[in-house]
Amino acid sequence: MNFLEGGLENVPGFKFSALECGIRYTNRLDYALIASEQMCSAAGVFTSNSLAAAPVRLCRERIESPIKAVIVNSTNANACTGRQGYNTARFLAGDIAEKLGVHEHSVLMCSTGIIGVQLPEEKMSLSHDKLLSSLSAKNGELISRAIMTTDTVPKRCAVSFDTSLGKFIIAGTAKGAGMIAPNMATLLSFFLTNAPVAPDRLRGIFEWAAGVTLIRSTSDGDTSTNDSAIILSPKSPGPISAQGDLDSFKNALCSLMEKLSEQIVRDGEGATKFIRVRVVNARNDGEAELVARKISESVLVKTAFFGEDPNWGRIAMAVGNSGAEVHEENLSISFGDCTFFERGRPQSNPPEKIKQVMSQKDITVTVDCGLADGEALFMTSDLSYEYVKINAEYAT
Amino acid sequence: MNFLEGGLENVPGFKFSALECGIRYTNRLDYALIASEQMCSAAGVFTSNSLAAAPVRLCRERIESPIKAVIVNSTNANACTGRQGYNTARFLAGDIAEKLGVHEHSVLMCSTGIIGVQLPEEKMSLSHDKLLSSLSAKNGELISRAIMTTDTVPKRCAVSFDTSLGKFIIAGTAKGAGMIAPNMATLLSFFLTNAPVAPDRLRGIFEWAAGVTLIRSTSDGDTSTNDSAIILSPKSPGPISAQGDLDSFKNALCSLMEKLSEQIVRDGEGATKFIRVRVVNARNDGEAELVARKISESVLVKTAFFGEDPNWGRIAMAVGNSGAEVHEENLSISFGDCTFFERGRPQSNPPEKIKQVMSQKDITVTVDCGLADGEALFMTSDLSYEYVKINAEYAT
Repeated sequence: MNFLEGGLENVPGFKFSALECGIRYTNRLDYALIASEQMCSAAGVFTSNSLAAAPVRLCRERIESPIKAVIVNSTNANACTGRQGYNTARFLAGDIAEKLGVHEHSVLMCSTGIIGVQLPEEKMSLSHDKLLSSLSAKNGELISRAIMTTDTVPKRCAVSFDTSLGKFIIAGTAKGAGMIAPNMATLLSFFLTNAPVAPDRLRGIFEWAAGVTLIRSTSDGDTSTNDSAIILSPKSPGPISAQGDLDSFKNALCSLMEKLSEQIVRDGEGATKFIRVRVVNARNDGEAELVARKISESVLVKTAFFGEDPNWGRIAMAVGNSGAEVHEENLSISFGDCTFFERGRPQSNPPEKIKQVMSQKDITVTVDCGLADGEALFMTSDLSYEYVKINAEYAT
Repeated sequence: MNFLEGGLENVPGFKFSALECGIRYTNRLDYALIASEQMCSAAGVFTSNSLAAAPVRLCRERIESPIKAVIVNSTNANACTGRQGYNTARFLAGDIAEKLGVHEHSVLMCSTGIIGVQLPEEKMSLSHDKLLSSLSAKNGELISRAIMTTDTVPKRCAVSFDTSLGKFIIAGTAKGAGMIAPNMATLLSFFLTNAPVAPDRLRGIFEWAAGVTLIRSTSDGDTSTNDSAIILSPKSPGPISAQGDLDSFKNALCSLMEKLSEQIVRDGEGATKFIRVRVVNARNDGEAELVARKISESVLVKTAFFGEDPNWGRIAMAVGNSGAEVHEENLSISFGDCTFFERGRPQSNPPEKIKQVMSQKDITVTVDCGLADGEALFMTSDLSYEYVKINAEYAT
């Protein structure tokens, strides 16, 4: 498996376009199209929010259909927009489907942005001809840019991997930044591969991989109405099916998702630090995940990192609130290679060593529960003034 | 029922003292004593954190014993301090008990402050004679001051209420500010009454009242290792027992706790706004509580209030994440008297009216689930730069 430069444009068989439609702002890429040459199998993981946006409801209905294209817009989430919002999503996807000559169920739609405002249906449909005519295999980065909201950099990644049927490529892009929670690590993410994988295998592998990567990165613990991760893989009479090949695919997908998750967390709103939370020796993996999640989401923990304060007491507090079985006398807590609490005993560390660890941009917190062999790794960021500024000023 | 000026000093039969022991800082009240003339029945509600501090474990063991006194210190939580920390708490409470001539189980101890540091046992015990000799019925406010950490004002409140046995008084004090969550609304709070209430009734009423008041106010969603709320009521051969009298007691206690909760949230770290979250017409009260809690704890919601932004989409997002049953087409969301979402339809409001509502220091958010008659009221605050500053700079 090899990481490649760039993103979606690495995958043969797909074309891309994006434009400034003026959905909410001018001079901003806000409407994009991903189109496949072949019909694709798709899989998706969607928000657990019970007020799921109209495009999420549309995707859920269509995700098992053969898919030809995905349209995606930023700046407007088309959430809390009722029947009208749903009809708009259906109309826009339907118009693209008609122009591509495929069944309306073969086009998906994703949206991100403000909640509770109807999409400008007419303006958007009027841009469809241009979206279609400007499709190009080289335009992958345009997709990454068009889906950005408060992101400061586009997130994209690609890997190649070998199978008995030859070399294949998977690439992904995501928008993240805020409203990112372990119940869907990103608002929107798209994965494309030229490896044909049978729909049921694709679904199983995609959901599993998202579960151990995307859903384990967090910014603020909130889950949006629009969170969607989607993968497209070309339909083929001879999909990859040998277990070894499927494992290669799974590993490549996992690595890709991990990299994207890291990019998302690093670019979290106002983030100045990237924190890995490693929980080991918990009662089981599920309990390790509870502990890692509680630490990763604690506002008190996140502000302490911003202050470069080795406040391991706040980590202990979060561990104790996680609901997992923990015993003070078995518990150890380290920041980098400074152990502050070892099997129930506070430890002292040289001040210069502490300062050296806490001033790093990347910090790993290790919590050893000392009970069994459950493990989990989460990624989170600190919480800074800038986070407050961004979110206090994000005007409706 | 009447609210009285001042706090604990209103309750006949109790004496108070506090001093600057120098536990962690100099020139700071950090060690205090509450002593009752009579032996008392006690009830307590303690943190759900599984790494409960040594003093919490001590209190849990003793809360059903006859209680004569409570010692309390700030600046050091005596949490994650193992067997030694427990022994220190036991020794200090035991020393006071000996000096008061009561069984060691008749003295409780509470602590708040930094986690993972042993208490200076000797220094503290050397101050016991002074703590005892300076006891005075007038010193109630000293207790309120000695328990403060990042609080900017002492929190105290007192009410009188009538029963068939005459007029009685309940007073309370609390420290709050940070690490306050709906799983115990305050790090430490103490309630005293001269009304004799039988232990089992006292326990039932206290736990119920805390459940509908203290645990429904939140600052940052984190639950400390030390959260404790304790009430003392004099033991008497003739406790109040008529249902009407117990109801008067319960109402008075509830009002008192509500006022203290409000004081705590208003003085939340960096808080510039006081937000009431009212959820009505949920499937049931439990689901209303889920919705109110999710809104109250959402960092995205709290930063939007700081920005005076009527971002009702974030409220909708939190509602959808609560786990409660909600349907977009039944849902309504208002800020003050501006309704932004009514039964699934976004509403427009005059900009000047929105500005008028959002610029208030006190704002009520009303979420109408439109399903049945479940209700809940929570109190929360906004999340400001100052919150980040306080928590980034709170040095270990």
